Amino acid sequence: MTASPITPSPITRCVPDPVRWRLGIRYDGSAFSGWAAQPGRRTVQGELELWLRRVLGLDQPPRLVCAGRTDAGVHARGQVAHVDLGPDTVMDPEALRWRLSRALPGDLAVTDLRRAPAGFDARFAAVWRRYCYRIADLDTIKDPLTRGFVVSIPYRLDVDRLNTAGRTLLGLRDFGAFCKRREGATTVRTLLDLSARRRDDGPEAGLVELTVRADAFCHSMVRCLAGALVEIGSARRGLDWLSAVAAAGVRSSTVRVMPAHGLTLEEVGYPPEDQLAERASQARSRRTLPGAESDRQLEPSHD
Amino acid sequence: MTASPITPSPITRCVPDPVRWRLGIRYDGSAFSGWAAQPGRRTVQGELELWLRRVLGLDQPPRLVCAGRTDAGVHARGQVAHVDLGPDTVMDPEALRWRLSRALPGDLAVTDLRRAPAGFDARFAAVWRRYCYRIADLDTIKDPLTRGFVVSIPYRLDVDRLNTAGRTLLGLRDFGAFCKRREGATTVRTLLDLSARRRDDGPEAGLVELTVRADAFCHSMVRCLAGALVEIGSARRGLDWLSAVAAAGVRSSTVRVMPAHGLTLEEVGYPPEDQLAERASQARSRRTLPGAESDRQLEPSHD
Repeated sequence: MTASPITPSPITRCVPDPVRWRLGIRYDGSAFSGWAAQPGRRTVQGELELWLRRVLGLDQPPRLVCAGRTDAGVHARGQVAHVDLGPDTVMDPEALRWRLSRALPGDLAVTDLRRAPAGFDARFAAVWRRYCYRIADLDTIKDPLTRGFVVSIPYRLDVDRLNTAGRTLLGLRDFGAFCKRREGATTVRTLLDLSARRRDDGPEAGLVELTVRADAFCHSMVRCLAGALVEIGSARRGLDWLSAVAAAGVRSSTVRVMPAHGLTLEEVGYPPEDQLAERASQARSRRTLPGAESDRQLEPSHD
Repeated sequence: MTASPITPSPITRCVPDPVRWRLGIRYDGSAFSGWAAQPGRRTVQGELELWLRRVLGLDQPPRLVCAGRTDAGVHARGQVAHVDLGPDTVMDPEALRWRLSRALPGDLAVTDLRRAPAGFDARFAAVWRRYCYRIADLDTIKDPLTRGFVVSIPYRLDVDRLNTAGRTLLGLRDFGAFCKRREGATTVRTLLDLSARRRDDGPEAGLVELTVRADAFCHSMVRCLAGALVEIGSARRGLDWLSAVAAAGVRSSTVRVMPAHGLTLEEVGYPPEDQLAERASQARSRRTLPGAESDRQLEPSHD
């Protein structure tokens, strides 16, 4: 059989390119089963996609992609997400944000909504995520008003000891000792900051804030690091214990996973606009190693 | 009938003097019907007296007297109260505080417990009460984590205008224009501070905090003052309106009573120990004017 003499005509592209939007999101995680949509559970992603569909009058909920997939009970003050919508869906972003603010439940807010710059990807273009873990120790006056996002511990923390311990873990390494391990997922991360301060002003005086910043996080990593640092800061264990734990590569039963409600995703860092696409492409290939899931968004991980 | 020839013998005092304790108290007012005990309602006083009775193993609940009788929904981070107990009831105040901290519900905490100095009276010895009213305006990024103690308003506040307006109301005057009036209760108070600042640091950045400090408060006074200042700060009304309102002596319907959940009792001031008794005696006589209730603790008032 010979080739058909009729050359197929070029396919006309009828579907216009979608427009990518960048969202800033805050939530009180107390009543959410984490970020990731799950059937039959109230999740941040599920609630946001539901309300975006309703407010925009779409047939199907749009799909949100976030920078840090927080676990059940974890809060966010600096979550970033993107969503791709038809070019005519959002005519006035400020009006949409206002309508969302009226529609969304009190524990969830879209604080910012704008057209994403070219190459932007909330997850893969991010260069770091910053979390804060808030602790009331024996030197902190207990405050019922902040009990939803502060964890009380029955010890006294030495902030200098916390900072000394934090510095020993900085840099590129395998954080398998501080993660709930997932099959096929790498636990190599670059820890950029692990430091503590005690608030000395205002109504928050006395609170110990642990700041943890890394290029990305594996599952439960911040809560494990906080648990390990509390051991050191309360002088119940020393730096040699921490080195041994870190070197073991798998999580020790002596590292406590701290409660979710002390943890807040505070900020996500992105490169300058002209480097967004390159960063996203690098991160996408690095996190899709042979043997890893083809789509790590299926994995419930602090990214 | 003549006087009896038998002179009564002096009555021997068998009941030993009680010991007065001073308590520092914090609460999230959301789920309380205010401070003052009321039958069938969950109140701060009721809950504290219940747990003191249980933890101390008393037959009857002890009676607490507080510095600022907060309304339903109002929070406290610096409430002070006193309680009189038999001399052998509290052997170890630190142990009692620890046991209370285990027993009390999460929205209520006794942060300090010590023997009161001679002459101390939580209510009558206080020289000032300081409240903070927290507002998120259009320039504040909405934060679901603090929605329990911050009120959102759909205006933009000018902090300089707030401070200018606040200064015009300082000093000794009749605050009847800013109170829900009660029969027979004086509304003359000395306003010591009425100022605003916008938080510029940390996760609270952007919040407008109104500080209101006075020798004492009449009913709903802080929430009325906050309502009046919001009119000025949002440029919907001017200083001449405020002067006219203040001079009227009775509350104008144009002064909004702001919602309770934005209000927190932050601190109570007492004189040096050697002046406590004198201050208490002065305040007690001043507030028991002819025609006033014999016990103003029956009146649901921010004292």
